[in-house]
Amino acid sequence: MRILFLGDIVGRSGRDALTQRLPALRAGLDLDLVVVNGENASHGFGLAPDMARAFLAAGADAITLGNHAWDRREIIPFLEEEKRVIRPANFPPGTPGAGAVVVEVRGGRRALVMNVMGRLFMDPLDDPFRAVQAELQRHALGRTIQAAILDVHAEASSEKQAFGHSFDGMLSLVIGTHTHVPTADHQILPGGTAYQTDAGMCGDYDSVIGMQKGGAALRFWKKMPGEKLAPAEGEATLCGLYVETDDATGLATRVAPLRQGGRLSQLMP
Amino acid sequence: MRILFLGDIVGRSGRDALTQRLPALRAGLDLDLVVVNGENASHGFGLAPDMARAFLAAGADAITLGNHAWDRREIIPFLEEEKRVIRPANFPPGTPGAGAVVVEVRGGRRALVMNVMGRLFMDPLDDPFRAVQAELQRHALGRTIQAAILDVHAEASSEKQAFGHSFDGMLSLVIGTHTHVPTADHQILPGGTAYQTDAGMCGDYDSVIGMQKGGAALRFWKKMPGEKLAPAEGEATLCGLYVETDDATGLATRVAPLRQGGRLSQLMP
Amino acid sequence: MRILFLGDIVGRSGRDALTQRLPALRAGLDLDLVVVNGENASHGFGLAPDMARAFLAAGADAITLGNHAWDRREIIPFLEEEKRVIRPANFPPGTPGAGAVVVEVRGGRRALVMNVMGRLFMDPLDDPFRAVQAELQRHALGRTIQAAILDVHAEASSEKQAFGHSFDGMLSLVIGTHTHVPTADHQILPGGTAYQTDAGMCGDYDSVIGMQKGGAALRFWKKMPGEKLAPAEGEATLCGLYVETDDATGLATRVAPLRQGGRLSQLMP
Amino acid sequence: MRILFLGDIVGRSGRDALTQRLPALRAGLDLDLVVVNGENASHGFGLAPDMARAFLAAGADAITLGNHAWDRREIIPFLEEEKRVIRPANFPPGTPGAGAVVVEVRGGRRALVMNVMGRLFMDPLDDPFRAVQAELQRHALGRTIQAAILDVHAEASSEKQAFGHSFDGMLSLVIGTHTHVPTADHQILPGGTAYQTDAGMCGDYDSVIGMQKGGAALRFWKKMPGEKLAPAEGEATLCGLYVETDDATGLATRVAPLRQGGRLSQLMP
Ligand SMILES: [Fe+2]
Ligand SMILES: [Fe+2]
Ligand SMILES: [Fe+2]
Ligand SMILES: [Fe+2]
Ligand SMILES: [Fe+2]
Ligand SMILES: [Fe+2]
Ligand SMILES: [Fe+2]
Ligand SMILES: [Fe+2]
Repeated sequence: MRILFLGDIVGRSGRDALTQRLPALRAGLDLDLVVVNGENASHGFGLAPDMARAFLAAGADAITLGNHAWDRREIIPFLEEEKRVIRPANFPPGTPGAGAVVVEVRGGRRALVMNVMGRLFMDPLDDPFRAVQAELQRHALGRTIQAAILDVHAEASSEKQAFGHSFDGMLSLVIGTHTHVPTADHQILPGGTAYQTDAGMCGDYDSVIGMQKGGAALRFWKKMPGEKLAPAEGEATLCGLYVETDDATGLATRVAPLRQGGRLSQLMP
Repeated sequence: MRILFLGDIVGRSGRDALTQRLPALRAGLDLDLVVVNGENASHGFGLAPDMARAFLAAGADAITLGNHAWDRREIIPFLEEEKRVIRPANFPPGTPGAGAVVVEVRGGRRALVMNVMGRLFMDPLDDPFRAVQAELQRHALGRTIQAAILDVHAEASSEKQAFGHSFDGMLSLVIGTHTHVPTADHQILPGGTAYQTDAGMCGDYDSVIGMQKGGAALRFWKKMPGEKLAPAEGEATLCGLYVETDDATGLATRVAPLRQGGRLSQLMP
Repeated sequence: MRILFLGDIVGRSGRDALTQRLPALRAGLDLDLVVVNGENASHGFGLAPDMARAFLAAGADAITLGNHAWDRREIIPFLEEEKRVIRPANFPPGTPGAGAVVVEVRGGRRALVMNVMGRLFMDPLDDPFRAVQAELQRHALGRTIQAAILDVHAEASSEKQAFGHSFDGMLSLVIGTHTHVPTADHQILPGGTAYQTDAGMCGDYDSVIGMQKGGAALRFWKKMPGEKLAPAEGEATLCGLYVETDDATGLATRVAPLRQGGRLSQLMP
Repeated sequence: MRILFLGDIVGRSGRDALTQRLPALRAGLDLDLVVVNGENASHGFGLAPDMARAFLAAGADAITLGNHAWDRREIIPFLEEEKRVIRPANFPPGTPGAGAVVVEVRGGRRALVMNVMGRLFMDPLDDPFRAVQAELQRHALGRTIQAAILDVHAEASSEKQAFGHSFDGMLSLVIGTHTHVPTADHQILPGGTAYQTDAGMCGDYDSVIGMQKGGAALRFWKKMPGEKLAPAEGEATLCGLYVETDDATGLATRVAPLRQGGRLSQLMP
């Protein structure tokens, strides 16, 4: 399977880059599965239903979220009707929406997409490791599903790497989001799972994690209320990871970063 | 000036890679200035004086530290005799050692090297932004010093980016350390300062931030005392950033990541 | 039922105060049930099996723990043989020991004692609220058990109060530990549950949370390795809460703080 | 000097209790100096100028703040005209307002009032210990000022106790705020400084730190956006500490808690 994962879409700049460029990427790379993290699509905070629809229409097969999942409250009822948008699986029982979805791709193949939130330096939540373990018990990689993707929305590199190693050989891809910076540690772990600590955001990199740099930098110098932060408006770099997997095993055979547009060094799989 | 910055050296694997490969790198890239972060050299925790001596002998011009600065206490008196080893500048007044050093390089040129620790998700410390500002008032980039390098030892990508933008045009390079994962957002900011959110560690990347993966991953699953962590022993990837600067301005003219050896994708400037 | 809960026993000073004074307190107040928190008994860090035995021999019916549960590792196998020592119930599945115990008291009555750890400003753990809810489903207050005591080992007053209100009417007593300072907000909540945000430690109050004040205060001024902390050695104040409950309902009918010995203002129920 | 310090005034319930009862308290206890913390006066978030005026009119000599200092932005310019309202002294240089004020009391005597914020589990700020030390160098307790009061707005009991011991003998009173729960560890430290870890809030104690208990407790169970929090509206307990000092030394000679009205056990000095 040819898979593309793209990190946190930030604001209009990120949304425009995604909807304008994803169709060509999908065709050019002959992709089977596209997953994007949408938690910052709406002015940096949350995801509105119409944005989710636009991402799916442009070629995304599933959309993950994170700590900003509910910043746009309209998404909450929307999750009931659109199962391809998922929120972290380790939100407590009774939370609307789901933390995993199986999507069907070309040739009748099936891919499991999961989302969890880390806990180190983040909110108190249920154990994300056991959440993944529980979900995996419902599937058989290489048999009932041909691929399994996990978006670990987390701050600490140590926790993300602990996911990679804990599930090495059980997932096609473990990829981090949330820091809004792409890491260069993409690799196939010894057990066959593709891994990258953070996909990076899809947004303007002349910014502070996607937000306008002047005000956002001042927050570290001052102890004042300040202006409301707004997304930076320069051209976005689409950031993510391309992975090829073997349908028979669900494991990775190739991994290559993608960085397209905007300020970052350009890289195509 | 041709500058190489290498991230946190972790354990024996990282030390060996550095001392064995730095002489050839220094010659091959015709480097003027080499700075390495040494806070994890000693079994993952701190830097012993003999290790500092070995790094300097192998071609480092200065060594920075971080939250593990004092894990090997012998380093504390050593900082008084060896000024090229610096600790975060925003440790409180009266702390042994210094947070900045001016080193002389080929042709009588002078380079300022600084180290600060971030505060978001880290220890309470003095303001690292004002610490850099105060140090810069003692120098004139392009006149009394030809280059100025800042190692921002910090957890949060937002805080590191705030440093990049706050000092854009005033420093040659702002580079992050501490997450032990190289980021792929190297760039020259609009004002001329080279920037990368994290240099990445020099250590074995089949690990949890350089430590053996089995025990380190289990810590996220269990709430038990566990074994003492030990560094992973596979071949290290040297990770860092190469920067070329204009002596007349002290600003960056070229920036290129370096990843050499071990598991990560290889890249030479 | 006449119940006494005593907060974190700290070091030798706390241990001596407990073992020397508890027999007289038990007799004088005609107590049915005594619960003490023992997480700091061993030089401030953990609880050794012989200390647990001494506390039980002196009149404790159950001992709770907290974030320092495993600092003395010998306690881990000991929990299997001595069920009256419990650790936080929201440690992950598979953790040795239990988070609740039913102890039998005079007249064949039974009391449930539970221990959980909060998560705000503390370690990532399972949901402590659901842990209590699950345990309560195994019992019927006023029928299968005559009293139910919960030690909420937590940092934040908000989280402890959330426990009080969430379980008001379902427990006899919700009492906090961990800050090592007694609070003066003891009350019977509207639903009948006795509540106090923190029991306070049993230790020397001329200290920093029980540890010698010089070194412990300096840690906030300096960023240096410092000496190992040791418990303060002045006379301990036993701190806790006395509660009377109605066996027919398991709810509280009277609540009164106890502070005996040492520097704090003295108060007997 | 006869001094009363009252903790965080929360919402209308707290404001009403203060303005209605302070005149009688001031007369009845023959007070020389009254200091109140006002950071939660406005619906739980911040202090509006008219509220500050009302508190001063009712008998407060100075008002301190905390992490909610700027929640009502109108207070920012107001601090320039009304010096008796102070914000934490360890906000960065250039912040509007001041962190200390000298107020004149009966008989031409002068009292220094200071406010700092702790850093453990709170925002990154300048060193609050050095901030107090610097302020004290401008005064001579027992000579240029007859009393010196410090409100330590902080989460951790350890940090507050470190303040008490670090400045024991140099201040009349070190009192904590922010947890919204009164502690029962009031004492005169060996050097003569009165101390209490937290004054407690002036608000409704059938609540979660002053806010309506239903919604506030649910936040610990759910991971959902939830309703906006509102202050609880039951009768407030005024909570604070009464201290008598010797004008010749500025040190404490008597310390006694005050709890008046509402649900908590009643106590008058
Ligand atoms: Fe994000
Ligand atoms: Fe996020
Ligand atoms: Fe490091
Ligand atoms: Fe570090
Ligand atoms: Fe404790
Ligand atoms: Fe504790
Ligand atoms: Fe407050
Ligand atoms: Fe506060």
